[in-house]
Amino acid sequence: MKQIELQQDILGHNNSIGDENRDLFNRKGIFVLNLMSSPGAGKTTLLERTIELLKDNFAIGVIEGDIATSYDAERIGAHGVEVTQINTGGACHLDSSMIKKVLTNFELDRLDMLIIENVGNLVCPAEFFLGEDAKAVILSVTEGEDKPLKYPLIFRLAKALVINKVDLLPYLDCSVTRIIGDATSLNPALTIFETSCTTKTGLNDWRKWLEGEISKKKKNRTRP
Amino acid sequence: MKQIELQQDILGHNNSIGDENRDLFNRKGIFVLNLMSSPGAGKTTLLERTIELLKDNFAIGVIEGDIATSYDAERIGAHGVEVTQINTGGACHLDSSMIKKVLTNFELDRLDMLIIENVGNLVCPAEFFLGEDAKAVILSVTEGEDKPLKYPLIFRLAKALVINKVDLLPYLDCSVTRIIGDATSLNPALTIFETSCTTKTGLNDWRKWLEGEISKKKKNRTRP
Repeated sequence: MKQIELQQDILGHNNSIGDENRDLFNRKGIFVLNLMSSPGAGKTTLLERTIELLKDNFAIGVIEGDIATSYDAERIGAHGVEVTQINTGGACHLDSSMIKKVLTNFELDRLDMLIIENVGNLVCPAEFFLGEDAKAVILSVTEGEDKPLKYPLIFRLAKALVINKVDLLPYLDCSVTRIIGDATSLNPALTIFETSCTTKTGLNDWRKWLEGEISKKKKNRTRP
Repeated sequence: MKQIELQQDILGHNNSIGDENRDLFNRKGIFVLNLMSSPGAGKTTLLERTIELLKDNFAIGVIEGDIATSYDAERIGAHGVEVTQINTGGACHLDSSMIKKVLTNFELDRLDMLIIENVGNLVCPAEFFLGEDAKAVILSVTEGEDKPLKYPLIFRLAKALVINKVDLLPYLDCSVTRIIGDATSLNPALTIFETSCTTKTGLNDWRKWLEGEISKKKKNRTRP
């Protein structure tokens, strides 16, 4: 019982700072995406392709969450967008206070979209609301078709599912149909993309979805 | 400060039950392996191949750790070994008390090896000692060459690193040389295997290593 109460306490505290972050994003009209996946599902590469597709029309900021190293922030920084690295120093997920602390690094008045690349982990990040408008989960087909039912929470909470590395399907025993069936049984409202950053498959649909979300957020901006 | 003390408390409690488990395994002469990786790196398939290679000569037990579902236990059970499923119901790792609770399901007097397949997560499971003799981390080449430095703890603590799915290397931009270089810079004592369960590459070396560990453990068995 004690353990449960403690966890509720941690999550409750996290949610209230998440709400503060969200209020700020709403006032500024910034669409905020929390990008989550297992290690190596392709978050950073998808993010690089996304920036290339959108940066001429939108001002994009990126927060990179990693346990150690700043490799990802260096990769993203090379694309000419504002990027801040958070090293969690062991912690398995980002939380809302880590996000709050680094927001001063960004010129929020000019940003259209802030993408938060979470720590590579299909479990813990899902529990921590950061203030985002949407969570997107990336699942690489190399991870296998059984993952939605084995890691249900992240698929239940996500607004978008990106089934990635589909160029490798000919060499794998993995059914995209089963992934989609299981994921939508958990979450019928999921928007699903099938992508490959190697062959550029599906990136246009992903770009259009993001553009739609950015423009919705701009329209619904809360004025002070 | 409070958070750090609490964590030490949790880990300290976990370690002492882990020590109890270890004492029991030592008395019984059972080699215990804690198998860890990201989701979808190939733990269960490697385990199936391992059982096929060893079950005629050794009595093997398996504990399957998953957040939800019993798919993996069903796959393992089909190979005719003793298997117990632990569903963590959300928790991102196994701990030593979960292991202690299910040990009564096994005939420990006849077991030579117990393999614990941890929850798919490259972060949290590394922190929790279960009573095992060795941790093995599996890294799929589809996850990318940068993972050892980005998730250093698990590579520091492992006795063996299995670089898996090497049959997919021709279709990927991933340097096994860099994985090995970075992993051994973190942990020079690592024993490293390069495997594919599809082409059966490297499985014989893996089998020989396990046979060696099982026989060392039998020899060092502590008598009551």
